[in-house]
Amino acid sequence: MAVESLLNTGDTAWILMSTALVMIMTLPGIALFYGGMSKKKNVLNTMFLSLTAFAIASIIWIIYGYPFVFGKTINGLIGIPTNFFMSGITLNMIHPGTHIPELLYIAFQATFAAITLALISGAIVGRMKAKAWIIFSIIWLTLVYIPVAHWVWGGGWLATLGALDFAGGAVVHLNSGICALALIIVLGSRKDTGLLPHHLGYSVIGASLLWFGWFGFNAGSALAADGLAANALLVSNTAAAAGMIMWIIVDIWKTGKTTILGAITGAVAGLVAITPAAGFVDVPASIIIGVSTVFVSYIGISYLKPLIRYDDALDAFGVHGLSGTWGAILTGIFACPAINGAAGLLYGNPIQLGIQIISIIVVGAYSFILTYGIAKVLDKTIGIRVDDQTEIDGLDINEHEEVAYRL
Amino acid sequence: MAVESLLNTGDTAWILMSTALVMIMTLPGIALFYGGMSKKKNVLNTMFLSLTAFAIASIIWIIYGYPFVFGKTINGLIGIPTNFFMSGITLNMIHPGTHIPELLYIAFQATFAAITLALISGAIVGRMKAKAWIIFSIIWLTLVYIPVAHWVWGGGWLATLGALDFAGGAVVHLNSGICALALIIVLGSRKDTGLLPHHLGYSVIGASLLWFGWFGFNAGSALAADGLAANALLVSNTAAAAGMIMWIIVDIWKTGKTTILGAITGAVAGLVAITPAAGFVDVPASIIIGVSTVFVSYIGISYLKPLIRYDDALDAFGVHGLSGTWGAILTGIFACPAINGAAGLLYGNPIQLGIQIISIIVVGAYSFILTYGIAKVLDKTIGIRVDDQTEIDGLDINEHEEVAYRL
Amino acid sequence: MAVESLLNTGDTAWILMSTALVMIMTLPGIALFYGGMSKKKNVLNTMFLSLTAFAIASIIWIIYGYPFVFGKTINGLIGIPTNFFMSGITLNMIHPGTHIPELLYIAFQATFAAITLALISGAIVGRMKAKAWIIFSIIWLTLVYIPVAHWVWGGGWLATLGALDFAGGAVVHLNSGICALALIIVLGSRKDTGLLPHHLGYSVIGASLLWFGWFGFNAGSALAADGLAANALLVSNTAAAAGMIMWIIVDIWKTGKTTILGAITGAVAGLVAITPAAGFVDVPASIIIGVSTVFVSYIGISYLKPLIRYDDALDAFGVHGLSGTWGAILTGIFACPAINGAAGLLYGNPIQLGIQIISIIVVGAYSFILTYGIAKVLDKTIGIRVDDQTEIDGLDINEHEEVAYRL
Repeated sequence: MAVESLLNTGDTAWILMSTALVMIMTLPGIALFYGGMSKKKNVLNTMFLSLTAFAIASIIWIIYGYPFVFGKTINGLIGIPTNFFMSGITLNMIHPGTHIPELLYIAFQATFAAITLALISGAIVGRMKAKAWIIFSIIWLTLVYIPVAHWVWGGGWLATLGALDFAGGAVVHLNSGICALALIIVLGSRKDTGLLPHHLGYSVIGASLLWFGWFGFNAGSALAADGLAANALLVSNTAAAAGMIMWIIVDIWKTGKTTILGAITGAVAGLVAITPAAGFVDVPASIIIGVSTVFVSYIGISYLKPLIRYDDALDAFGVHGLSGTWGAILTGIFACPAINGAAGLLYGNPIQLGIQIISIIVVGAYSFILTYGIAKVLDKTIGIRVDDQTEIDGLDINEHEEVAYRL
Repeated sequence: MAVESLLNTGDTAWILMSTALVMIMTLPGIALFYGGMSKKKNVLNTMFLSLTAFAIASIIWIIYGYPFVFGKTINGLIGIPTNFFMSGITLNMIHPGTHIPELLYIAFQATFAAITLALISGAIVGRMKAKAWIIFSIIWLTLVYIPVAHWVWGGGWLATLGALDFAGGAVVHLNSGICALALIIVLGSRKDTGLLPHHLGYSVIGASLLWFGWFGFNAGSALAADGLAANALLVSNTAAAAGMIMWIIVDIWKTGKTTILGAITGAVAGLVAITPAAGFVDVPASIIIGVSTVFVSYIGISYLKPLIRYDDALDAFGVHGLSGTWGAILTGIFACPAINGAAGLLYGNPIQLGIQIISIIVVGAYSFILTYGIAKVLDKTIGIRVDDQTEIDGLDINEHEEVAYRL
Repeated sequence: MAVESLLNTGDTAWILMSTALVMIMTLPGIALFYGGMSKKKNVLNTMFLSLTAFAIASIIWIIYGYPFVFGKTINGLIGIPTNFFMSGITLNMIHPGTHIPELLYIAFQATFAAITLALISGAIVGRMKAKAWIIFSIIWLTLVYIPVAHWVWGGGWLATLGALDFAGGAVVHLNSGICALALIIVLGSRKDTGLLPHHLGYSVIGASLLWFGWFGFNAGSALAADGLAANALLVSNTAAAAGMIMWIIVDIWKTGKTTILGAITGAVAGLVAITPAAGFVDVPASIIIGVSTVFVSYIGISYLKPLIRYDDALDAFGVHGLSGTWGAILTGIFACPAINGAAGLLYGNPIQLGIQIISIIVVGAYSFILTYGIAKVLDKTIGIRVDDQTEIDGLDINEHEEVAYRL
């Protein structure tokens, strides 16, 4: 049914499209996914957090983000910046080892920074000052995202160690999830911690747009229009589908009913878990990853959260932190040499699993501690939490003097 | 204004993008198009049908769908499966006759299965059990979609016969429409069969996203970034525009008023009708196809449906079944040798029209009978219809214990 | 960090995708952006204006629009049409100087006509007859859009003069803005000219989809998948982000609060202003363009509009007219020879600024006068304004007999 042949792997075109073009769709994706799950009185504020995440990350990235992340490494810790404001980057430079213009690679990487920051916002909805979020965003990108991205993707020490993170299991999802946890510990719980989505249709659109944009992240990380990209696309779609089906099964098993919120949460959890693995595993492994991660996130959201009583409003930690960690671990198990050279535990390389666990622990600890510290300092100085009346009235009217619906 | 030259047709890039990347946008497209037209009390259930269609088709496709459809044919009836779970499909295999990775072609084809199933759901909203839909989906994909797709696209007997179906007139639209009809005959009518869309803005977004994703199906089916793909893109856009304008004109003619529902229904009908023809006809033919199909679907929806009294809630049969059939017939008339070699009646080849009619009759009969049988068996065993109270209260609250809007 | 190398610039793929595929997303983009800002009673009518703009422009374009715009020029004024209904355009023709099929270039250009017309509709919501809009659309495309597009992009006299307009500063944004102004002068003000967006979530989705589709326009205008396209992509994203941040700052400065409407308006203003410049300026210039244009549009909307009392309902003139003009001027200042050969004032070529100003004045004057004339003639003959009762009741129910929400 298929014959082997040399493929044209030197194709600038696809990655061009699959980067900022497709990935920018994660902006309405996350704004709607979170906005629909929030309360009616906070929906615009929730969307504002995502919108500003994209804008702030886009600007910081070209001023000093990219220069620090991808500059020549200083002992694996941070890059030496030389291209502030993209000075010295000409149109005909290509990214080393690819056929992609460096300017395109920069746009591609900018969206990773943007989405990671935006994902954090899901935990904090309903109680953080809009201006404090903006200041937090600037500091967090600088002190947390930039170093971690350098370690894993910028030639830093985790790259040297051999950590596998194809499209952001540690850098994006574990990172955003653990930082969300740190931020809400400082921020405290809402008065009313129940989850009553005010507009699930928004969340369905949002999840679907995320699914679309995610292909940009995961297949795009192949940095070429080749079989590896196609494999990443197919395993990502498979894990999303497996996650949705498994969450539906768990819902039926626990309550007898299927739910729309469960279906889309399962799909997103599957996408999160496959993210670090997308360029390293085959299709059967993607089913296992998509199915198993549902249990991890389900247990986290349904049992761990009520037990420990952190108020992760829209489950940024439960979905992204937990499934991101799970995916990073499973990458160390299922990485298949036939896909991309790297071997996991299942293929006789237990060391890879150890490296994955080290990277999880280090990134998790660093990001948690720094984020906690940033949040604490901001809370003691400018204050990060809205007053009680604003929380009760809703952040839309008090923080933005706007009303979401005049129906 | 333009000079002739050899084009680079060996481009993996565009088809990569135009497949699952763009086509996945038909998921929010159909969920919103149908969701907006449903009643408020059933909108989440309506979206659930589309979501699960995509997830179930994605999983079945890689387990046994693709192997059966694209395996070596047994007398033109079904393929011999050899790649369950994508075993044996390596990254550097390309799809025969193209420059596309086989893994990408698999992802591309998966979305055809998904959208065909999702389209059926438009007929049944407001009265089918969610779990029965899931079981129906699995059986229907296995017994109906897989054989038909093999016949037309997998080297089966309709392909041998020479049936023209560029992007799914018979396989997708006629198929989904006729199966929708069979399913609702078993299911029975709703208590209240009126169409009062609860949220037309959803449907406008949905139709627009379908328009976008449809380019993925129709232009993508060229399997290369070449002039044929460009022609498919342009004729698809033209037919959609012609369909919208014609429906607006018919609306004015019949009622004196333009309607938004008419405008988007016309665009979708135009897209449906051009689907089998997109790779075979020129621009003037696409205008005729887009304009004429409006009359076919309009008559079906406005006169045939009330006459025969089938309860095609959101006109899955009226739009997809009828315009899909019409498009398949017109492909046999307008197929232009200068586009893709094949000639229709207008270019002196009446046999092609005969072949198209045979394929319509066979696919229509097979799909109708099988679907009716599946629905009957399910109805006698697990039951496929919700109880009266659930129908009155709405499926969202009773089947899913969720509420779409808390505004 | 990056090495210089020859890039493959002859890539049909990306432009294929980035044209109608991505640009069609500006249809839901503008429908939702405007629809969300309109009143509840006019939202469907607002979306109808965008939908019909795309359909009418798509059909006119292939019948006679493209032939007149891109035919051999008659003294720089208009093209000699030879390809009505795309006769004579074969699949293997490529667009001169590119590797793109001519049929694809035609689809690409069709969306420019469509979005320009759709943008005008933002000014007139709530008071124009639906059928009058359709007739206006046909005449306006013929007498205004087609000549202007020929002058700038079709080898006409402004192209000969050397006007720089990469992706539509004059042709699209200045043009739509100034024509919106002419149309509303004839149409008159609404009874109630306040802006109370009825569904800001729509507008957030809309602005995000516009952001996405805009990459298609701006990066797509490179007509190749090369460094120039990557630069256009990055400067477009940067200007959008800078515009959003600056509008947020201005909001805080003026009222102490951030707003969602301000954030998305700033992003769109940034995208408008960078449009003519995207293929000519570098990243630092894009920050200046994005930041400075916020002041231009903010002053226009907040001070000029109340002063002069034109009723630009959703600020089509304020955002597109003013930021489009500003972007066209700044292109004459910041055009950098290292990007695309052309030099602006800052790089020692003051003549370019003069050319830009001439093109602004000529396009502005021609488009304003013609549009005013068309509107006047239509108003005296068929009448373009709805009656008072329709305006009070809303256009949805009176013009379309539809209701947007049954919640």
